[in-house]
Amino acid sequence: MSNNTTKPIIGPSEKVAHFEKDVWSIFTPLAAETKAINLGQGFMNFNPPDFVQDAANGAISDVAANQYSHPKGRPRLRKALADSYSPLFGRELDPENEIIVTAGANEGMFATFAGFLDEGSEVICMEPFFDQYISNITMNGGVPVYVPLRAPAKAANENISSHEWKLDINELRSKITDKTRMIVINTPHNPIGKVFDEEELIEIGKVAEEHNLLILSDEVYDRLYYEPAKQVRIATLKDFWKRTITVGSGGKSFAATGWRVGWLIGPSELIQYSLAAHTRVVFCVNSPCQEALAIGLEKTNQIPYFQNQIEAYTKKRQILSSVFEELGLPYTVPDGSYFILVNTTKVQFPQDYPFPAVLDSRAKDFKLCYWLAKEIGVVAIPPSEFYSKENRELAADFARFAFCKSDDVLEDAVKALRKLAPYIKN
Amino acid sequence: MSNNTTKPIIGPSEKVAHFEKDVWSIFTPLAAETKAINLGQGFMNFNPPDFVQDAANGAISDVAANQYSHPKGRPRLRKALADSYSPLFGRELDPENEIIVTAGANEGMFATFAGFLDEGSEVICMEPFFDQYISNITMNGGVPVYVPLRAPAKAANENISSHEWKLDINELRSKITDKTRMIVINTPHNPIGKVFDEEELIEIGKVAEEHNLLILSDEVYDRLYYEPAKQVRIATLKDFWKRTITVGSGGKSFAATGWRVGWLIGPSELIQYSLAAHTRVVFCVNSPCQEALAIGLEKTNQIPYFQNQIEAYTKKRQILSSVFEELGLPYTVPDGSYFILVNTTKVQFPQDYPFPAVLDSRAKDFKLCYWLAKEIGVVAIPPSEFYSKENRELAADFARFAFCKSDDVLEDAVKALRKLAPYIKN
Repeated sequence: MSNNTTKPIIGPSEKVAHFEKDVWSIFTPLAAETKAINLGQGFMNFNPPDFVQDAANGAISDVAANQYSHPKGRPRLRKALADSYSPLFGRELDPENEIIVTAGANEGMFATFAGFLDEGSEVICMEPFFDQYISNITMNGGVPVYVPLRAPAKAANENISSHEWKLDINELRSKITDKTRMIVINTPHNPIGKVFDEEELIEIGKVAEEHNLLILSDEVYDRLYYEPAKQVRIATLKDFWKRTITVGSGGKSFAATGWRVGWLIGPSELIQYSLAAHTRVVFCVNSPCQEALAIGLEKTNQIPYFQNQIEAYTKKRQILSSVFEELGLPYTVPDGSYFILVNTTKVQFPQDYPFPAVLDSRAKDFKLCYWLAKEIGVVAIPPSEFYSKENRELAADFARFAFCKSDDVLEDAVKALRKLAPYIKN
Repeated sequence: MSNNTTKPIIGPSEKVAHFEKDVWSIFTPLAAETKAINLGQGFMNFNPPDFVQDAANGAISDVAANQYSHPKGRPRLRKALADSYSPLFGRELDPENEIIVTAGANEGMFATFAGFLDEGSEVICMEPFFDQYISNITMNGGVPVYVPLRAPAKAANENISSHEWKLDINELRSKITDKTRMIVINTPHNPIGKVFDEEELIEIGKVAEEHNLLILSDEVYDRLYYEPAKQVRIATLKDFWKRTITVGSGGKSFAATGWRVGWLIGPSELIQYSLAAHTRVVFCVNSPCQEALAIGLEKTNQIPYFQNQIEAYTKKRQILSSVFEELGLPYTVPDGSYFILVNTTKVQFPQDYPFPAVLDSRAKDFKLCYWLAKEIGVVAIPPSEFYSKENRELAADFARFAFCKSDDVLEDAVKALRKLAPYIKN
């Protein structure tokens, strides 16, 4: 017998061996199979604006824009980002040293974890969290440490504002150890829609200052907040700039989630290490789409694109939330991002429904969402995916609906969701 | 005094702290500054073919092709890859389970190292190597172990074929330990241009089999080999398929290095772990360029694009190598890829030239290439970057010239390089 038949097949690293099947690989195929209206994954069913599409077409016939870009990002995009963000940051951003373009915001965060975490480094994450944070931290040797955002008790019975989900700053402080290196903030928040206010951010920033921690502020929905809320950036408060890396997203800003262009903004002394990792992980980012987004950002100085987009999304939020009002299902009114978190306690779906085995180990929200796709024809995402295993039950009575869809699709979703009425028990 | 002034500034992880300034961040700005003809970095100064540009323009106005793709890659591209590669692999490739699309070949390799390496896992790399391998291995806890490809002694005085660079298989075998998990192959090879033949690959594959190792075969130049050489794929030999992951590149195949679309082909039992890592590192790959490459690959079934491209590159190789003949500088005739490795022993450049301090710690080839850019007006890459620190002197008398440029630029480079004549001492 040769060695290769007796030895076990080549196995995975510890880094990936423990990964569970993620929520997307369950619910995205389910959306395709059921042809349900997909309010699951947060992508648009409409195109980037014409001026960005035109710019992309131009880039495709530009020799330089089809070849490698600088690992930092194309100069024109870094310049456009500096021009667009400098007023928002209240400081002149240096496109050479304070901005890097990444292969989506996701890779920018991965590269930052790679650039700062050693084996056993702890990272404070608020629950619920965007699921990729956790694997990105653990793959780089880090250990996520959780602190919850809590809704008020009344949330089971009445609508609340996303602002009513609160962080207990003393609870956060109690989680800091000698190994803590970073705090991750997400504002506007996915899936809650919370936009952290100045006071909240100062409290968090002070803890970071006391313990010399890095702040990684995921602001990928920064162009999507709803009056009277407004985006506050922790990097602009107190002296926090020098310890903060802010994450942005071309896909979220310009309805192009498939372009995979994101960015990091922060002091040179910090983002140099994100850049060091990023350069090795992907070398550089898709060039023609970088060029198109550069031109797109330049145009937003002449036309009120972001303001118009906020108005359009405010209407979308209204269309979708109307059906939860009608059904009497309490929900969180989001101040930002494009998700509505709905409390589903009152929905009495059949417990003996033929659920697939893959859901057995998950919280109740996975079953609700599965049944919803199959029987009601609308895909939502079970938010227990955004909690640590220990705390999944906290999300068992919620479902997340995305409203980054065209108005007609949202209207169709409203019609479909009305079919829930017979299942709702008050 | 507050804590934040007494504590040191937030520092980098061990993973990135040791990185040296890479060759690209020295020579790419030098190319820009000197306006020298850039035969350094291997990107094209021409566009992807019209049928691929047209497909990209079409994709930009297709809603689905602007939004998230499946982490595995867009179905149309995986199908096109299966159709294109199945005959080359001599087996029906399954687009659902045996192909994944990555954010460039680089990220595909990073994800594979992440998927299989644990702390201290050893990876056999042949010197010279593509520089990104090493950081990609160490960032994932791995340890590169080097085994050289050696040129015959006569290479200092006469031209040789890239095939004359040889691996000593017993030397490779002597490097295997209990911690070895992987062997990296690169064929066609950068920077040598060597195309490994069947016998050589079988020798390597047998060692992998004896020790149950994974083979990561970087074949990004697989469409660029020159008669009479032909691409042999280790995955098609013996029983090696089941332990081999093959890496391919859309950028190299279609003159679009800035698109950052690559792929991995291998058995489901292996690439599932690359996919697990890839999904967390970048989530998915630029969608419109995936769609465009899908359509491009489909077209290559109707038009002899790859054959024409090989003919065009054969001519480019001839144009550039003619000047080294003329100057009497011995070089390696590449069987594949788009680089010529030239022996520069005879070039007597001024040792008291004002070299920047960043070159002090590097081998002599960095100085030769710096002087060449400044005084002769042609950028080449010093290949000692592709050796471990201990073995850098092996490359001190070489320079790497890329010929993936339009014929007129190559003709201009020939004219410029003639200015070397007075500096050549026989």
